[in-house]
Amino acid sequence: MSDNLKIPFAKRLNHIQPFHVMRLLEAAKRKEAQGVAIVHMEIGEPDFDSPAYVIAAAQQALQEKTMHYTPAAGLPELRTAISHFYQCQYKVKIDPARIIVTPGASGALQLALSVLVNSGDSVLMADPGYPCNRHFIRLLDGEPISVPVGKETGYQLTLQQCQTVWTTDTAAVLISSPANPTGSIIATSQLNDIARYVKGQGACLVVDEIYHGLTYDEQPPTALALSEDIFVVNSFSKYFGMTGWRVGWLVAPKVYVEATEKLAQNIFLAACTLSQYAAIAALLPETKIELDKRRDEFKKRRDFLCDAISSLGFEIAAKPEGAFYIYANCQKFSNNSYEFCYELLEQTGVVITPGKDFGCYQAKHHVRFAYTSNLEQLAEGISRLRRYLERRAE
Amino acid sequence: MSDNLKIPFAKRLNHIQPFHVMRLLEAAKRKEAQGVAIVHMEIGEPDFDSPAYVIAAAQQALQEKTMHYTPAAGLPELRTAISHFYQCQYKVKIDPARIIVTPGASGALQLALSVLVNSGDSVLMADPGYPCNRHFIRLLDGEPISVPVGKETGYQLTLQQCQTVWTTDTAAVLISSPANPTGSIIATSQLNDIARYVKGQGACLVVDEIYHGLTYDEQPPTALALSEDIFVVNSFSKYFGMTGWRVGWLVAPKVYVEATEKLAQNIFLAACTLSQYAAIAALLPETKIELDKRRDEFKKRRDFLCDAISSLGFEIAAKPEGAFYIYANCQKFSNNSYEFCYELLEQTGVVITPGKDFGCYQAKHHVRFAYTSNLEQLAEGISRLRRYLERRAE
Repeated sequence: MSDNLKIPFAKRLNHIQPFHVMRLLEAAKRKEAQGVAIVHMEIGEPDFDSPAYVIAAAQQALQEKTMHYTPAAGLPELRTAISHFYQCQYKVKIDPARIIVTPGASGALQLALSVLVNSGDSVLMADPGYPCNRHFIRLLDGEPISVPVGKETGYQLTLQQCQTVWTTDTAAVLISSPANPTGSIIATSQLNDIARYVKGQGACLVVDEIYHGLTYDEQPPTALALSEDIFVVNSFSKYFGMTGWRVGWLVAPKVYVEATEKLAQNIFLAACTLSQYAAIAALLPETKIELDKRRDEFKKRRDFLCDAISSLGFEIAAKPEGAFYIYANCQKFSNNSYEFCYELLEQTGVVITPGKDFGCYQAKHHVRFAYTSNLEQLAEGISRLRRYLERRAE
Repeated sequence: MSDNLKIPFAKRLNHIQPFHVMRLLEAAKRKEAQGVAIVHMEIGEPDFDSPAYVIAAAQQALQEKTMHYTPAAGLPELRTAISHFYQCQYKVKIDPARIIVTPGASGALQLALSVLVNSGDSVLMADPGYPCNRHFIRLLDGEPISVPVGKETGYQLTLQQCQTVWTTDTAAVLISSPANPTGSIIATSQLNDIARYVKGQGACLVVDEIYHGLTYDEQPPTALALSEDIFVVNSFSKYFGMTGWRVGWLVAPKVYVEATEKLAQNIFLAACTLSQYAAIAALLPETKIELDKRRDEFKKRRDFLCDAISSLGFEIAAKPEGAFYIYANCQKFSNNSYEFCYELLEQTGVVITPGKDFGCYQAKHHVRFAYTSNLEQLAEGISRLRRYLERRAE
């Protein structure tokens, strides 16, 4: 395209950043290609394969079913199975009609925000947080309001913070619990206070529960237990170990179901048919046994890694209660966590994610460790870091 | 949610209609449940199963591969295979770096429009046309400008029409060829004229080629052969028979690749991994033999159905050259095609799609017949329609 012609470029792209860790990963891959053994502590997906029952269900569906479009809201038997899951897991009754199966939680977030947010509206969310949340709102030309959260509030929004930044343009509040990158879980009373306030303001609460199931101390209730007016996003990716299958779901308040389904019809048509058949098997009691073993393994990794990186000199404000991440302060070593991540990759072959992938607030002083590699790998990573950081301190 | 509270609802939802045919389909399903044999001529997907090599490739991938996330732009081997497909099929060289694998063509349309269209911008498209096109633009709070097209222009936009409705807010022109619901193919010279004009205006052309391969008289060139500045959307759904797998792709002009990939990363993460492995097999020469047989079968159906519905008294302005639809004028029978579709369902058990699913222009006088049922079914449908319409005329 010649330079003297203007080319159209939507302004929203100026506000959408790529994942910075991807550049680190590319550098890591170049090293791997040269034979350097890299220790991955940056990856946001479980290292386990998809559960055996899920694979078997996919094999069977390939033999027995045709791979045509499903209804836009998903296979009826999957929606019923998800409803049953809420009954068994949380003792909450959810009408399957309120459950819309989506291409990953990404699809669910997009649907919920698209029915709620007008261009110019604002949405409150925690900083640090999952970066795509901001970008979904930018896609709609809305204004993400990143509210700084730290150890004082358990890395979650509080009612008072919501009240302080609230304006007449605020259409929604987005809460992730357990959260990425901090692994923090919002207290039920705190969530309840926010839910009431948001409703009172005529706005809507969206709660991202994609790391539910991966909690290591106690099992929090679903936000759906608090109110029927909350959108809840969930996914088969994390606890259920089905990242690449791209199936998630949205539970919408009844009044939004029709609009949400209409939008799903138009923007996705439907989630992948085979993945939906496979996902039914993810909800079987037999699969749960396997998944809970994996959760116990994640817990061991968390406990090991928390102690290990603390002993190296990273500061962990609060032991993460869920997900598979530790958000650690690296100020003892650097005031520029992005450069520090490159330095660690260069000097040790360990890849971690810089804070700037999760927002602005104290991002330069933080890094995220993911425990999505096995204990042996984690131990190897820690010993490399220890050798390097001790040498560096001399 | 109590009535005295306002609830937030994005205004764009007022502009997004559900597929009207879905209500017809629900009525048809109720009849089927009562034992009535329904003849389906409304369905927008091939009735054939996914090709055997595709199923086999999925089986193999389930055994050999892990189902983790792929890169946001897709499996490198699939992007290379698609590039090779352009070389073999169209003799056009496309750098795999310009190819972004998406969750269906829906994902590709959303990506292309999201990098081009600001809120308030307008996008030109043909009416009648695929309804989701308008809605993707509404999602971005853009303004879809539906330009009426009829038999005079071969049911495609012309340069003159684009010039007439052009404003400084026009960011893009969207052309589908072969088109849904008309099956019309745009003449290459016509497309070229529009491409040059659009570029001269500093806007962008997006061409939807999802029905390429399903053309029955001659094989049109891809728009990519005309210019490197055009976005092209394609899919494994239609010709390749992989609807439920949800894999499509976008070829982006080089200058947009980085932005498009960044957006894909944020809004989809990636297309379904297993579907991507399966799609590689859709591009094998062995699969092409099977797919071309199916195309020949579609051609037989088109020829049969065009003659048959013409003889019933429907008017077909131009024999459709591609896709699997016939857009027919039903004015001889009704001035309200929506009611007419219900009448036909009620009286004959034949389901067709009302014109209003494709826009406003002469929608009340048109219906769409899909030839996605086998010849026997089509013949059954026609004989039911014949009996009924003859009786009705008496």
